[in-house]
Amino acid sequence: MERQDKDLAWMLQFENIAWYENGRVDILDRRIYPIEVRKVSCRSHREVAAAIKDMVTQSAGPYVACSMGMALAAYECRGRAEAEQIAYLEDAAYTISHARPTTTWRMQKICESCLAVAREALASGAADVSEVIKEFAVEQNNQRYAGIGVVGRYLAELFPSKGAIMTQCFAETIVGMMLREAKAQNKDIKLFCPETRPFFQGSRLTASVCHDMGFDVTVITDNMPAAVMKNEGIDLFTSAADVICCDGHVVNKVGTYQIAIAAKYHGIPYYVSGAPDQGHITIDTVQIEMRNPDDVLEAIGQPTANQNVKGYYPAFDITPPELVTGVVTDQGVLNPLKLADYEAGPDDFLV
Amino acid sequence: MERQDKDLAWMLQFENIAWYENGRVDILDRRIYPIEVRKVSCRSHREVAAAIKDMVTQSAGPYVACSMGMALAAYECRGRAEAEQIAYLEDAAYTISHARPTTTWRMQKICESCLAVAREALASGAADVSEVIKEFAVEQNNQRYAGIGVVGRYLAELFPSKGAIMTQCFAETIVGMMLREAKAQNKDIKLFCPETRPFFQGSRLTASVCHDMGFDVTVITDNMPAAVMKNEGIDLFTSAADVICCDGHVVNKVGTYQIAIAAKYHGIPYYVSGAPDQGHITIDTVQIEMRNPDDVLEAIGQPTANQNVKGYYPAFDITPPELVTGVVTDQGVLNPLKLADYEAGPDDFLV
Repeated sequence: MERQDKDLAWMLQFENIAWYENGRVDILDRRIYPIEVRKVSCRSHREVAAAIKDMVTQSAGPYVACSMGMALAAYECRGRAEAEQIAYLEDAAYTISHARPTTTWRMQKICESCLAVAREALASGAADVSEVIKEFAVEQNNQRYAGIGVVGRYLAELFPSKGAIMTQCFAETIVGMMLREAKAQNKDIKLFCPETRPFFQGSRLTASVCHDMGFDVTVITDNMPAAVMKNEGIDLFTSAADVICCDGHVVNKVGTYQIAIAAKYHGIPYYVSGAPDQGHITIDTVQIEMRNPDDVLEAIGQPTANQNVKGYYPAFDITPPELVTGVVTDQGVLNPLKLADYEAGPDDFLV
Repeated sequence: MERQDKDLAWMLQFENIAWYENGRVDILDRRIYPIEVRKVSCRSHREVAAAIKDMVTQSAGPYVACSMGMALAAYECRGRAEAEQIAYLEDAAYTISHARPTTTWRMQKICESCLAVAREALASGAADVSEVIKEFAVEQNNQRYAGIGVVGRYLAELFPSKGAIMTQCFAETIVGMMLREAKAQNKDIKLFCPETRPFFQGSRLTASVCHDMGFDVTVITDNMPAAVMKNEGIDLFTSAADVICCDGHVVNKVGTYQIAIAAKYHGIPYYVSGAPDQGHITIDTVQIEMRNPDDVLEAIGQPTANQNVKGYYPAFDITPPELVTGVVTDQGVLNPLKLADYEAGPDDFLV
């Protein structure tokens, strides 16, 4: 079974993100990595869905976990009658893909592709459907990573030969691909990573990937992006997205909108990477997930406020196309107001 | 000895902020309040200066600590020859006022006024100079608080009869005064407080004061202000300032600049409260304090990043006058570009 290149940071290699083996899916716990390296072992697809909901893995991690969760679901219903297995897998696809509302469309797409593979395998009498799904998952992720490699190349081409890049939250595989390409293009860049409260994905995940790939990386708190733009000369702001609507609205980790406003104020371009989500023609179809407000009243398990005050936690915010300089896709850099130019194919989301 | 009104939240009563008594100054440790209520006992004015430097107290806390520290310095040199005592107190005034660079001018102003009182007391043969300084400190703070009460009234007059206000960091006494006045004016307001990383002054201090004074308060992370402006309908953004330059530049906790940019983008007014610092005619005379970069790599003592990455920590940022709707002073609301209209008096800084 061919896995992807080993020149990405350890945590970007998808067999480390989520992996099906012998009736369980092991998921890297990104809520604490790299302060602790631990995996959450899921013994059923429902546990996989719960892990996605609880943000054991996030960013594009759930897309790997989805297909591995479908392999696990096939293991759970092995030996039953074909129709029963299909019904079980249909139910699993629904459960897993609805673990989080904002990215449901993408997760459905993956689960349904696994379902199609399972149907075919069952029809042809495959001995072990879970292995067939897993093999498909590996192939699908390799294809996805190849597409993201192309995005990374286009993105790195936008970098100055020497300069500073600001990121937001954890842009997943694209960070690694972008940095690999920046090296290949001899771009001398340093990175500023806002920490991304409340879960610190920026300081823990993005900064770790940048460091592991050999780059100069500085963590800042989420109140510093504008000051850093003014003081340190940021050349480009970039993020991935949880949804890129075909009307050019970008849904990404809360804070993206604010940095995009600050970037515009400073005349700094903002490039989002990925591909337009064909399931979201306009922003009106996107549901912004509201998470537990108490999460903003603590940090790494320590309380940060009086017990009697309230929190507020929209997981994502919406950046309008007027603040987006370009959408960097595997088909080149697109104008956010002309995303119809993108020819949707099998890789029509890339994170 | 008359102290101030007791209708402010406990932590705004200045005898709880920093207090000289029997050869020591007890300073409320704002780095952990209200999660823990503990005081740091300083046995010398050098320990007071160190406490200010280490942010045991911040915002306007150091202004109370300065005068109480001068009382302690007088205690330390009691019984020596008059000239020696004066030399000792001059040295103490320098040490205390230079504990932090950005607000040195304000702290110098306080320490020098205490020094003048001490000189007079020594010349007239006062039995206990430290008590004379302490009495002066109480009177000075009562006057300062009275001035801030007027600022609070003008600020509350800008609030809608029902609406939402966003704050930044810990605006100290002005928060309490503003809320007291809002109540008196029957303003039905709720507050959104960004948490203010890395020390969480917003979630710990501002939110606690708002709660203690009976208001509906919601803590948000520092990446949320723009999203909250868009989603929740913020009517007004307000902050205090560590320096208000006479040219209209506002120096305040890092993050203020970014929120001011977001406020402008959303058409929300930003009012800063205080008075123009006559010691800073232009922004060029202000030194922005760079604090320990490692502070941004932890939260309440917990590491938040890989050990090998760097941090970056400018304590303050600079908001240009174009982003400031008005400066709310004890003489009314001024245009940030016309701060010469302010008639500088003894209360020419108000926090």
